[in-house]
Amino acid sequence: MAVDLQKIMVSKAEAAVKAADAMTLVSTDTKNEALLAMADMLEKHDDVIIEANKKDMALAEEKGVKKSYLDRLLLTHERIGGMADGLRQAAALPDPVGEGDYSTIRPNGLEIRRVRVPLGVVGMIYEARPNVTSDAAGLCIKSGNAVILRGGSEAINSNIAIIELLQKAAYGAGIPEGAIQFVDVVDREAVNIMLKLNNYLDVIIPRGGAGLIKTVVENSTVPVIETGTGVCHTYVDESADLDMALKIAVNAKTSRPSVCNAMETLLVHRNVAERFLPMLSRAMKEKNTELRGCKASLDIVPDMVPATEEDWSTEYGDLILSVKVVADVNEAIEHINKYNTGHSETIVTENLTNSRLFQRRVNASSVYVNASTRFTDGCEFGFGAEIGISTQKLHARGPMGLVALTSTKYLINGDGQIR
Amino acid sequence: MAVDLQKIMVSKAEAAVKAADAMTLVSTDTKNEALLAMADMLEKHDDVIIEANKKDMALAEEKGVKKSYLDRLLLTHERIGGMADGLRQAAALPDPVGEGDYSTIRPNGLEIRRVRVPLGVVGMIYEARPNVTSDAAGLCIKSGNAVILRGGSEAINSNIAIIELLQKAAYGAGIPEGAIQFVDVVDREAVNIMLKLNNYLDVIIPRGGAGLIKTVVENSTVPVIETGTGVCHTYVDESADLDMALKIAVNAKTSRPSVCNAMETLLVHRNVAERFLPMLSRAMKEKNTELRGCKASLDIVPDMVPATEEDWSTEYGDLILSVKVVADVNEAIEHINKYNTGHSETIVTENLTNSRLFQRRVNASSVYVNASTRFTDGCEFGFGAEIGISTQKLHARGPMGLVALTSTKYLINGDGQIR
Repeated sequence: MAVDLQKIMVSKAEAAVKAADAMTLVSTDTKNEALLAMADMLEKHDDVIIEANKKDMALAEEKGVKKSYLDRLLLTHERIGGMADGLRQAAALPDPVGEGDYSTIRPNGLEIRRVRVPLGVVGMIYEARPNVTSDAAGLCIKSGNAVILRGGSEAINSNIAIIELLQKAAYGAGIPEGAIQFVDVVDREAVNIMLKLNNYLDVIIPRGGAGLIKTVVENSTVPVIETGTGVCHTYVDESADLDMALKIAVNAKTSRPSVCNAMETLLVHRNVAERFLPMLSRAMKEKNTELRGCKASLDIVPDMVPATEEDWSTEYGDLILSVKVVADVNEAIEHINKYNTGHSETIVTENLTNSRLFQRRVNASSVYVNASTRFTDGCEFGFGAEIGISTQKLHARGPMGLVALTSTKYLINGDGQIR
Repeated sequence: MAVDLQKIMVSKAEAAVKAADAMTLVSTDTKNEALLAMADMLEKHDDVIIEANKKDMALAEEKGVKKSYLDRLLLTHERIGGMADGLRQAAALPDPVGEGDYSTIRPNGLEIRRVRVPLGVVGMIYEARPNVTSDAAGLCIKSGNAVILRGGSEAINSNIAIIELLQKAAYGAGIPEGAIQFVDVVDREAVNIMLKLNNYLDVIIPRGGAGLIKTVVENSTVPVIETGTGVCHTYVDESADLDMALKIAVNAKTSRPSVCNAMETLLVHRNVAERFLPMLSRAMKEKNTELRGCKASLDIVPDMVPATEEDWSTEYGDLILSVKVVADVNEAIEHINKYNTGHSETIVTENLTNSRLFQRRVNASSVYVNASTRFTDGCEFGFGAEIGISTQKLHARGPMGLVALTSTKYLINGDGQIR
């Protein structure tokens, strides 16, 4: 069985490599036509997808999973329409492949150009949301890649239905056969095998909870782009407009607490803590948000839960906020750089020097002044759909659009130059 | 002992992280002054380095290592001058930190900029050449990074002498203490520990033979940039100017056979093989180069050694060349994409369609038309000194200059925007 699984995975990977080679010759027009055909196909046959999704939902309900989990798994007519719209949006985005960003003629007459090329074969490992299946396939095809998708086992029936429709539409429109691979094996060993397919895969992108991402980072010998986990901070400086700070804090924490760009910890300068924390406490009570405070903050608002060391590094993903009083902007920066995950951080201040220091020293993909961290998102940044939010510094950082799914290549043209 | 080593490595890593934070505030002027001071210091005290190098040389000779190895290890007055010049060249290069490549104002008034920032802490693992110690330190400092260097144990005395001088000069000129770390532990376990320091290191760059690179890629949980190994090809097309092809082939193979951009396999179109291979055979004999041929090529030049399957994926690094006759440009491309290491490939042709197809389909960092693969090198491409040649597709591909040692960060400025 283990040997068979290895063979299955390698044969999928070989087919993807072959398709990736053929993809280098596919035009933007063909890719766009394929994306539109994929969108139409999903909408036309959404009954097939909904039928398959019902099976997944029934199995999940039987297992007694959480309501929020069931909601992520559920597909409806409207949600499938949303997936189709995502594919149409990918078709409308500019094609990064072939874009040049460096060009020179050397003294010896060699012409050197650097151009964007597809990464090759992209591996995606993700959890329950079946919309990731079409989003990822769409972005990978648009950027000229072959893709190997491995979704959560709970969505297996939904994913197979989606994939079969996507493959049929894509290959019918001229995308090379094999460019969209799906791992239809529930056995987790398939993931372990995938993480070692260095000779075939150019990158693996995990999307999901901290556990999934840790497993991939620790075990993959294929290069990985870490995504997603966000322990984001708001720092309220001494000079802050406290009404603005309150609006930003409430938005960053409560507008959508489950997402990675939501705030988890609020830091406040000690000289304004006595004024700000009671305001914060009242506003957060209205939003049913639990506050967990450091010792100094408990002296000001005694009815908070005492925070433990663990709180400073926890991504609650829920209506819980940890609160800490700091001596100045430097202590705020040092706290952030110690406990954050490199996602999004904001300072609320009217002090220009502190804003510059904060943006310079804070180690994160996106560093804000006087705005909510909730804006870290491909669409909000103006890039269109994203494949994830990178929290590492290599290759791509922050919201990853189509360009993050490409590499570069040097093209050098001469007339017989030797060295 | 093992516990102590872990502690030693973590304390070096912690010091590097602290220095990397402080480096975010260091100006280009200070970095340049430090590089010039480092250069002067090496030259002024080259006697100390040469004395330490003599110890390394004596130990290596005792062990009976190869002559070519001894030559790589040897430091002379002139070679130390070359290291100093490398540091001065790094000072003269433009500073990539702070460069912006994206800037926009969103409809809601948010101003978004993407700017280059240092990677943070760079780990370098390399072999015998002690000049890598100063080259890597110089490029990392110029790009605003802290660096942890781990050189080959055979060069330990030379490296310690170099590092002590570099640290003294750098810290004296305003570089934060701790920014240049050296692993002065010969035990290989130090490398294994380094490969798992995810919480401290942002990237590890291995430089050396295939064995070292494989170990790092397979065991590191820190992101890695693969460098160096080069199984490079020259394809002589049917339409090639055969005199040009011969000049390019001789140059690519024999001008410096030990380097990674040297050719290892020559492919020739079957319709010109009868004319070209005898020319090649004569020229390579003059250069004392052994030819290993496929069956079809042996029919034309019978005195070649028969090539085995292993030859097609071997980086000889020596005066040996494998030779294969192919049916057309597509077979050449498929052979290359199967056996190459993603480094440098060239086609010699007068056919425009074939040249375009070759540059589009060949999967490598640098794809040439009518020029020798020997040009793949930071200086030849116009980037100045390089930290290595990336053969992977993530983050950096081909010769890596200062920009490859940076990441990006989004700076977002608002006036109270919420979502």
